[in-house]
Amino acid sequence: MYLTQGLHRSLRQSPNAPATIFGKRVRTFAEQADRVARLAGALRELGVVDGERVGILSHNSDRYLEALLAVPWANGVLNPVNFRWSAAEIGYSLTESETGILLVDDTFAPMVAALRQEYEGLRAVVHMGDGPPPLEGALGFEDLIAATAPLTDSVRGGAALAGLFYTGGTTGFPKGVMLSHANILISALGSQATCPFVVPHGRALHVAPMFHLADLAIWVAHSMVGGAHVVLPAFDPPTVMAAIDEHSVTNVVLVPSMIQMLVDHPQLAQYDLSSVRAIVYGAEPITEVLLKRAMHAFPQADFVQCYGMTELAPVATMLSGKEHREGSRLRSAGRAVAHAEVRVVDKEDNEVPRGTVGEVVVRGGHVMLGYWKKPEATAKALRDGWMHTGDGGYMDDEGYLFIADRIKDMIISGGENVYAAEVENAVTKHPAVAACAVIGVPDDRWGERVHAVVVLKPGAQTPTDEEIREHSKGLIAGYKSPRSVEFVDALPVSGTGKIDKRKLSAPYWPDSDRAH
Amino acid sequence: MYLTQGLHRSLRQSPNAPATIFGKRVRTFAEQADRVARLAGALRELGVVDGERVGILSHNSDRYLEALLAVPWANGVLNPVNFRWSAAEIGYSLTESETGILLVDDTFAPMVAALRQEYEGLRAVVHMGDGPPPLEGALGFEDLIAATAPLTDSVRGGAALAGLFYTGGTTGFPKGVMLSHANILISALGSQATCPFVVPHGRALHVAPMFHLADLAIWVAHSMVGGAHVVLPAFDPPTVMAAIDEHSVTNVVLVPSMIQMLVDHPQLAQYDLSSVRAIVYGAEPITEVLLKRAMHAFPQADFVQCYGMTELAPVATMLSGKEHREGSRLRSAGRAVAHAEVRVVDKEDNEVPRGTVGEVVVRGGHVMLGYWKKPEATAKALRDGWMHTGDGGYMDDEGYLFIADRIKDMIISGGENVYAAEVENAVTKHPAVAACAVIGVPDDRWGERVHAVVVLKPGAQTPTDEEIREHSKGLIAGYKSPRSVEFVDALPVSGTGKIDKRKLSAPYWPDSDRAH
Repeated sequence: MYLTQGLHRSLRQSPNAPATIFGKRVRTFAEQADRVARLAGALRELGVVDGERVGILSHNSDRYLEALLAVPWANGVLNPVNFRWSAAEIGYSLTESETGILLVDDTFAPMVAALRQEYEGLRAVVHMGDGPPPLEGALGFEDLIAATAPLTDSVRGGAALAGLFYTGGTTGFPKGVMLSHANILISALGSQATCPFVVPHGRALHVAPMFHLADLAIWVAHSMVGGAHVVLPAFDPPTVMAAIDEHSVTNVVLVPSMIQMLVDHPQLAQYDLSSVRAIVYGAEPITEVLLKRAMHAFPQADFVQCYGMTELAPVATMLSGKEHREGSRLRSAGRAVAHAEVRVVDKEDNEVPRGTVGEVVVRGGHVMLGYWKKPEATAKALRDGWMHTGDGGYMDDEGYLFIADRIKDMIISGGENVYAAEVENAVTKHPAVAACAVIGVPDDRWGERVHAVVVLKPGAQTPTDEEIREHSKGLIAGYKSPRSVEFVDALPVSGTGKIDKRKLSAPYWPDSDRAH
Repeated sequence: MYLTQGLHRSLRQSPNAPATIFGKRVRTFAEQADRVARLAGALRELGVVDGERVGILSHNSDRYLEALLAVPWANGVLNPVNFRWSAAEIGYSLTESETGILLVDDTFAPMVAALRQEYEGLRAVVHMGDGPPPLEGALGFEDLIAATAPLTDSVRGGAALAGLFYTGGTTGFPKGVMLSHANILISALGSQATCPFVVPHGRALHVAPMFHLADLAIWVAHSMVGGAHVVLPAFDPPTVMAAIDEHSVTNVVLVPSMIQMLVDHPQLAQYDLSSVRAIVYGAEPITEVLLKRAMHAFPQADFVQCYGMTELAPVATMLSGKEHREGSRLRSAGRAVAHAEVRVVDKEDNEVPRGTVGEVVVRGGHVMLGYWKKPEATAKALRDGWMHTGDGGYMDDEGYLFIADRIKDMIISGGENVYAAEVENAVTKHPAVAACAVIGVPDDRWGERVHAVVVLKPGAQTPTDEEIREHSKGLIAGYKSPRSVEFVDALPVSGTGKIDKRKLSAPYWPDSDRAH
């Protein structure tokens, strides 16, 4: 099993079919394979030795996918860089991983000077754009491909290290998650085997950043069943809808807030989105109202929720399209995929009774090799073959997992537990409401008060607090219904695309750790 | 990745759902896990050490599946014995593999004395039936389970040896194919990812022998997605139809001759077979006529063809349900699955042009570790990571593989090439014909003559040779149409379930190697 395997298979089965579509630029599998073989040759000529790390700092592009193939082809190790990080954080990861070569696009080329200040080990910088490199001393991606003979694929694979995927940069030192080829391919095959979300020979749309395992996983799964990749540099609703329409996209990875932006968009009806067969999302659950609106917008699509993490390459549980249509478990992260065992344990690693919150742990062939140069962190995370996710959660009697990040999203008002998700589900059913986030805010009488932050639909009349409260009381208990409402233009979103409740709560809890 | 993984997953998700159904005996996943843990404990108490081989010589049963789980649970290595072999062949394999413990059912218990003459190393024999063991010194399967405390699963897995699967007993010395846990699980996940033939939480019917990878592979794939197993000791059409009807079977592995026997059966219409979602078959292609009849008999089923071999754990290519419905490539073995690369090479291992016959070679994470204690045979079969199948074949421009066993099934008549499959397709379209095999027989004028061996439908009037020929000429060229016809009650079938053309041809070619 090796990351380049899908390319070889497609090359034999459909060499003249499109492999990548990036704006007007379409490349077939035969062209992609030739370019990848030449780029791999260039990497070797730049001195990449077996197992050496090669960094990629770039927005999504067809060249990004070529680089993801060329590095293993050349027997190097991938280091896809989180471009949301500061130069200091990236510098730390380049230093620790001793990344000798960096591929960089036009957007991030200006950052290279600052990176060189953090890290002196960059031997070569390759410019992934068109035209002459905007950086002194940088090499041109296209120049290298044009000037280099094709290399034979190393077909390095199996348990060999495929990439370092740095995580956790926003708190503490980033950790380089070491994933083998087998780790990544097992997650891709196992996810597809559990819940066939990828359409063979279909078209995947990439709008989530490729450095993140969520998008990379779809790239691998889709590549293994012969699909083409439609690539957009970033998420923008009209561009996304136009790309789906023009290229008959079958698959896409989105987070619920992106789905929200699409279904709220005034031009939604102008596009034909009926080609989409599956929308994979993660990071947060979907509300019933959003699901219904999204099912209407994407009539042929299965909604598939995945829970996992970089250390799990990345999928551990899935909630299938069928389970979404049934609608009764939308707050669950689903059940263990075919390639994983999932359980919830106490501090002594004993499995807790169902319904009891504990730490989610996962075992299987997709569990990372460890953290790069961090044996202690590795030993702490991997115990008896189980990856300790650090996520709290509980499991119901049928093995459905509920993640405590979402459970913790609980307000204690007048001594009663109120789950934010339940209130959000009720509030978003109001005809004027487009989106809603519910938080607890300090209240002299109730301790915490249920507070709704609401985005209205375009052109909708602003309801009063009391109208929202009365509407909610028709659906849920009075003590759960919002006692105060705040109207905003948009909900703040964190770097990973989740609604940032911490940001919403912070102004209400100035002197406290409370805040989600 | 470990063979017991699916059981652990099911135990968490649906402990009280049926795991095995064998006649009136139904056992849940919780019961199965408890029995497996106890049987594994008993194996350790019998002295099974890490990596030691444990043999199973038995017709299909629920206990067979328990043994398949208990051996890896106890950190042993499986050795499922081909019960079609002679005592000498089995003795050879037990000797070579140093199998210390043998599990044997009532049918094969009488063979143990002969095996002990071939091999003195059997420390213990476990009787897999009910009641007191019919063999002196044998232990009772149920007695061991009742008397032993549950063992904790070894969770041995990944690249560790899971089993020895002996092949090739009918010519030369048998070879023990060493498959790792990962080999078997990758083939299962990859096949399901390529073409989702297994219904999650569905019911698989086992009628093909479990010692063979074809059935074992379905067991693994089905176990990984939480399904139950309906087990029959052997193939018998009415019993198969009754089991499908009674237990709402969703999946079954059959060979085309078994499919033929089912659709020909006079009681076919009495059973409800509409629960079947996929029929997986291998070993030989399906004719258009049989496919149409079978699609009528199994209206909701996808027909899925697999090509592979034990050394590939076992799947390398698949022809999907959709490709069967399209009907234009029924003679192909399909295309490379997601987990495999397949190519056709010459004697120097260079890929040959499409359409040219060469040796089929396969690469991927499912390729065996090697042959047990046969380094030379291993080195010959595995070169540069490619499994050399020994099968001749060619590939078309879209990567569809055609196996030469089927290509060799060609008659040269009057200097023209006539493919038997094409003639069989035409002849079986005659309303009186139930099945047909076409062979070449010596002919003074034509060199070889196209000769059809025909089985009539029950109650059909016997057509003349000329009627069959005229019918065929309406569909295919005159030189391809049979010049002679022979009517038989049934077509001879080889040990592996293929139509035995060698047997049909032999009387016509008494002094020759010719004969298929």
